[in-house]
Amino acid sequence: MPVRFSITRKCPQTSARIGMLETAHGTILTPAFLPVGTQGTVKAITVGELEDMGTGLILSNCYHLFLRPGIEIIARHGGLHRFMNWNGAILTDSGGFQIFSLGGLRRLDDEGVTFTSHFDGATHFLTPERVTRLQNMLGSDIAMVLDQCPPYPAERKEVRSAVVRTTKWARRCKEAHLHDNQALYAIVQGGVYADLRRESAVELTEMDFDGYAIGGLSVGEPKELMYESLQITVPLLPNDKIHYLMGVGSPDALLKGVRLGIDIFDCVLPTRIARNGRVMTSKGYLPIRNSVYSTDLSPLDEECSCPVCSNYSRAYIRHLLNTGEILGLRLTTQHNLYYLDRLMKEIRKAISENRFEEYYREVSPQLTKMYGGVA
Amino acid sequence: MPVRFSITRKCPQTSARIGMLETAHGTILTPAFLPVGTQGTVKAITVGELEDMGTGLILSNCYHLFLRPGIEIIARHGGLHRFMNWNGAILTDSGGFQIFSLGGLRRLDDEGVTFTSHFDGATHFLTPERVTRLQNMLGSDIAMVLDQCPPYPAERKEVRSAVVRTTKWARRCKEAHLHDNQALYAIVQGGVYADLRRESAVELTEMDFDGYAIGGLSVGEPKELMYESLQITVPLLPNDKIHYLMGVGSPDALLKGVRLGIDIFDCVLPTRIARNGRVMTSKGYLPIRNSVYSTDLSPLDEECSCPVCSNYSRAYIRHLLNTGEILGLRLTTQHNLYYLDRLMKEIRKAISENRFEEYYREVSPQLTKMYGGVA
Repeated sequence: MPVRFSITRKCPQTSARIGMLETAHGTILTPAFLPVGTQGTVKAITVGELEDMGTGLILSNCYHLFLRPGIEIIARHGGLHRFMNWNGAILTDSGGFQIFSLGGLRRLDDEGVTFTSHFDGATHFLTPERVTRLQNMLGSDIAMVLDQCPPYPAERKEVRSAVVRTTKWARRCKEAHLHDNQALYAIVQGGVYADLRRESAVELTEMDFDGYAIGGLSVGEPKELMYESLQITVPLLPNDKIHYLMGVGSPDALLKGVRLGIDIFDCVLPTRIARNGRVMTSKGYLPIRNSVYSTDLSPLDEECSCPVCSNYSRAYIRHLLNTGEILGLRLTTQHNLYYLDRLMKEIRKAISENRFEEYYREVSPQLTKMYGGVA
Repeated sequence: MPVRFSITRKCPQTSARIGMLETAHGTILTPAFLPVGTQGTVKAITVGELEDMGTGLILSNCYHLFLRPGIEIIARHGGLHRFMNWNGAILTDSGGFQIFSLGGLRRLDDEGVTFTSHFDGATHFLTPERVTRLQNMLGSDIAMVLDQCPPYPAERKEVRSAVVRTTKWARRCKEAHLHDNQALYAIVQGGVYADLRRESAVELTEMDFDGYAIGGLSVGEPKELMYESLQITVPLLPNDKIHYLMGVGSPDALLKGVRLGIDIFDCVLPTRIARNGRVMTSKGYLPIRNSVYSTDLSPLDEECSCPVCSNYSRAYIRHLLNTGEILGLRLTTQHNLYYLDRLMKEIRKAISENRFEEYYREVSPQLTKMYGGVA
């Protein structure tokens, strides 16, 4: 069955909306946050734990899997779902961001990109067609076009060149795409330049993709600039198609993004900071490794009812992290994902009950205060 | 309720027996293998996964917990079970082995032992009384006496001195022990010297401990020497009390140990080698990180029905381990523990069905061939 996105309710005062994303691997309620499973696993977590949490959609990365273990062996398992034993939905990123940010870029032109693997130095050549075919082989529910993602800051000239190339490549991805059950989403570029964002959005909208992502944000630019770019870009996307903000996961940014019309987000933030001992709570970040928690019998977050907070104390989790115990990484990761999942649930509930604007006015200042620093 | 051990059936031809160890935290069927949770967690595994596996008893280490996070904070949680959220039984080792093997030993006499922490260099003084009280505070179901464990090889003079001191300390531990629900087991020393083993066993038996462990083996001596020492020592222990072989976990040694009358074993082997990419299978060790498994779609062990083997391929697990993914460590650890658990189940079944000798004759050569190298 083809992937289908539909809007179930719109906020009358803002651009927020709730929707349903139907895939061959289940239905996801939006707005939703996608845990990141770059290498075919959401770090430290089992697929069973994701399922128990109610996660419906995760992100994995075609570029990384292409390098290790290779797409061929995954295809021989019957695709990425079977490889990783995950029965929910998967969105694969093409790797555009990684190719351009992880170094090793050798040659770049309209034909494709030649780069060296940051693992073993081997040289690879990827084209929009190849990246599309590789994602077909992975069998993810949603594939992304190969895009050119410029860094921040970048000269306008470079950003425009990336917009032009991204449009050309998007067209070629669409032509190469052959998979009934897999959607293909385009990625709007343009940096922080309003007119370039407009150019990219208009050109990609004309090609009638299944969904639209906004790339090239949360790459080091000030948050205000990101929100400005969103405010310009989202209205230019087809309203009835899904809107995906890539690489954003800070709670304050999630809420602001929803208000501006974003349906799905992905980010390594909750899982990465968890492994570094930074826990998300109803009172902001908790640096759990700090000695002040060594005798704290309370849960990570008093307002959280996740399995971690229901069963373990701060003192225990701190002990685990400070003694290098793997269980510590599992527990903090699990909690942070539950935290974001609960946030998204609350957001959906507010929209569904026609009180999103009220919810936003109450909660956004708190989240901005607690999380509004650098993402 | 006090801890109670009873023998339910004896093998007519050998010293093997099946038994029941009843504790306030459940009943354990013996012979049994105890996963090691040194710092209050069995590395990489949750207590839920241990429970699903049917694990009834795990080992934790008083010495390590004393250093980090400290016994006081654990006691404030209500004891070690509550600290780590484990509702099964716990046996705590006193730390005798660690104090004498981890270095930092400053002063040793009949009074006690002064050592420096191998973590932060702080100096600590432990006596038999203190170690016993600390284990009382932990609230483990079974506590061990503070013993002096000599290395291998060691001069006879040193080994004898350790036997004498261990006896003195054991007496003091028993006098200091005040905990109705907690058993106290003695540890027989004597190295590989038959007469010293005899001396130690006789003196400790006279003191009527709840159970008897054999320490100071599997510390580098040739396996044959270990079996010889077992053959001498076990018959000297009270037949109706539990027999515990410390630090042994190699499948061939488990089976041989059962035949010689051992009821419980503990060892870091299955969990440690798992994290190093060495998996136990029905065909011996599988070095899963090897490139030959990169395209292997079969499970770790075709004959295993654990959750790992039911859901994941060798290729996937290899990919996880080689890319540093935590899930890889979880899966190999879980499988190795299931492997040993299944072995112990088979052993108990053979004894229960009066065919242990037959089972031993068939299986022991295979296990010795596959696992009989260095433990």
